[in-house]
Amino acid sequence: MLLETSHPGNLGAAARAMKVMGLFDLALVNPRCEIDDEARARASGAVDVLENATIHASLDEALADVVLAAACTARRRGLPHPAYTPRQAAPKLLGIAQKQPVALVFGSETYGLSNEQLMKCRWLLNVPSNPDYSSLNLGAAVQVLAYELRSSLDDSALALPEFELAPHEAEQALLAELEKTLIQIGFHNPDNPKRLLPRLRRFFAKAGLEKDEVAIWRGVLSAVQEQVRRSGLG
Amino acid sequence: MLLETSHPGNLGAAARAMKVMGLFDLALVNPRCEIDDEARARASGAVDVLENATIHASLDEALADVVLAAACTARRRGLPHPAYTPRQAAPKLLGIAQKQPVALVFGSETYGLSNEQLMKCRWLLNVPSNPDYSSLNLGAAVQVLAYELRSSLDDSALALPEFELAPHEAEQALLAELEKTLIQIGFHNPDNPKRLLPRLRRFFAKAGLEKDEVAIWRGVLSAVQEQVRRSGLG
Repeated sequence: MLLETSHPGNLGAAARAMKVMGLFDLALVNPRCEIDDEARARASGAVDVLENATIHASLDEALADVVLAAACTARRRGLPHPAYTPRQAAPKLLGIAQKQPVALVFGSETYGLSNEQLMKCRWLLNVPSNPDYSSLNLGAAVQVLAYELRSSLDDSALALPEFELAPHEAEQALLAELEKTLIQIGFHNPDNPKRLLPRLRRFFAKAGLEKDEVAIWRGVLSAVQEQVRRSGLG
Repeated sequence: MLLETSHPGNLGAAARAMKVMGLFDLALVNPRCEIDDEARARASGAVDVLENATIHASLDEALADVVLAAACTARRRGLPHPAYTPRQAAPKLLGIAQKQPVALVFGSETYGLSNEQLMKCRWLLNVPSNPDYSSLNLGAAVQVLAYELRSSLDDSALALPEFELAPHEAEQALLAELEKTLIQIGFHNPDNPKRLLPRLRRFFAKAGLEKDEVAIWRGVLSAVQEQVRRSGLG
């Protein structure tokens, strides 16, 4: 919900920021500008969100059916509203939004939200920022909040595509072969081992050896051993 | 670190996004546009970040001293480096950044990051997004990552690294030496490369190469090359 927005580019940026994070319901309260070519350009593939935006004459009208309005503000207020970071607020907002409409409220670029507007909201959201320069652009603020909602939604959804890790036995055999090869090329001296093997084991452990990688490393070691054979025969 | 950026407005938006979250070191690699009036307008109070940006002719040059480069990408890749959400990655990035330089790498607006560029980075960062429309604006992507770093500041104390990571330049030089050696021993054929080098790069990326480990691997390669020399002379 954008109040008294004056730059068309910010309307477009907000629409794009929302759609990228899977949000679609944009409400404009007393916009001070038109949805023009610049707005559409900045919206990019989210022109639909922009053009489906509802337009309201007052904040009260826009909030009519909303059960929880959270006002986004960089400033700490003296008012006794509950204040949260986006991270604290997001799970609760998402929980409520499953059943009833919630809204994020953003003020104008120049004036932010008036105290009167803030008082119509239940929560304040304080975006963590640089105390010396906390002037978050409007589109960027929408992006941060939309991102926070999305991240709280599917925090656990992203994982590495399934690669098969190498079984313990294959890894141990490979490391034994590596040790043997290092002795053959004169790099490792079993009588004066220092910390070489533990360090290499640690390196492989950090990498999380996969099945396919066993074959690659085995191939490398075979090729090195072939050199050793030829060198010995020469 | 912004690669091949083509819209001045995005340079400004990125600078503002950074400063609002307390980040100041902006690096531009092969920018396709000037820092012009539009860039300065969008930077607003962060013109200093914009004008202090370093400009580099190549990604390697820009990353030379960096120990952990994290590439921001919306796409899943077929052969992924270690991939994290911004939320997963932020505490570790902050922990390392207390001692050694880290970088967030953003591709061009049109093409994103090439596979070659991605391969120079240790981590991929996948910003959670709407699967049907994941086209995050460049400035908005910078805002999301900068916000995530700021929001995670409190969590970073636990993530102090025990070991010093190897700088990008040292890692790239080692991988080049590895490639050369694999050709010498006949395991790698540059005319029929298959997927060998990307797979090895990925293996090293997963392992998180440390400074001490560079010396170990260099020693291994030297010993192998010595075998090749002797084999050739024999």
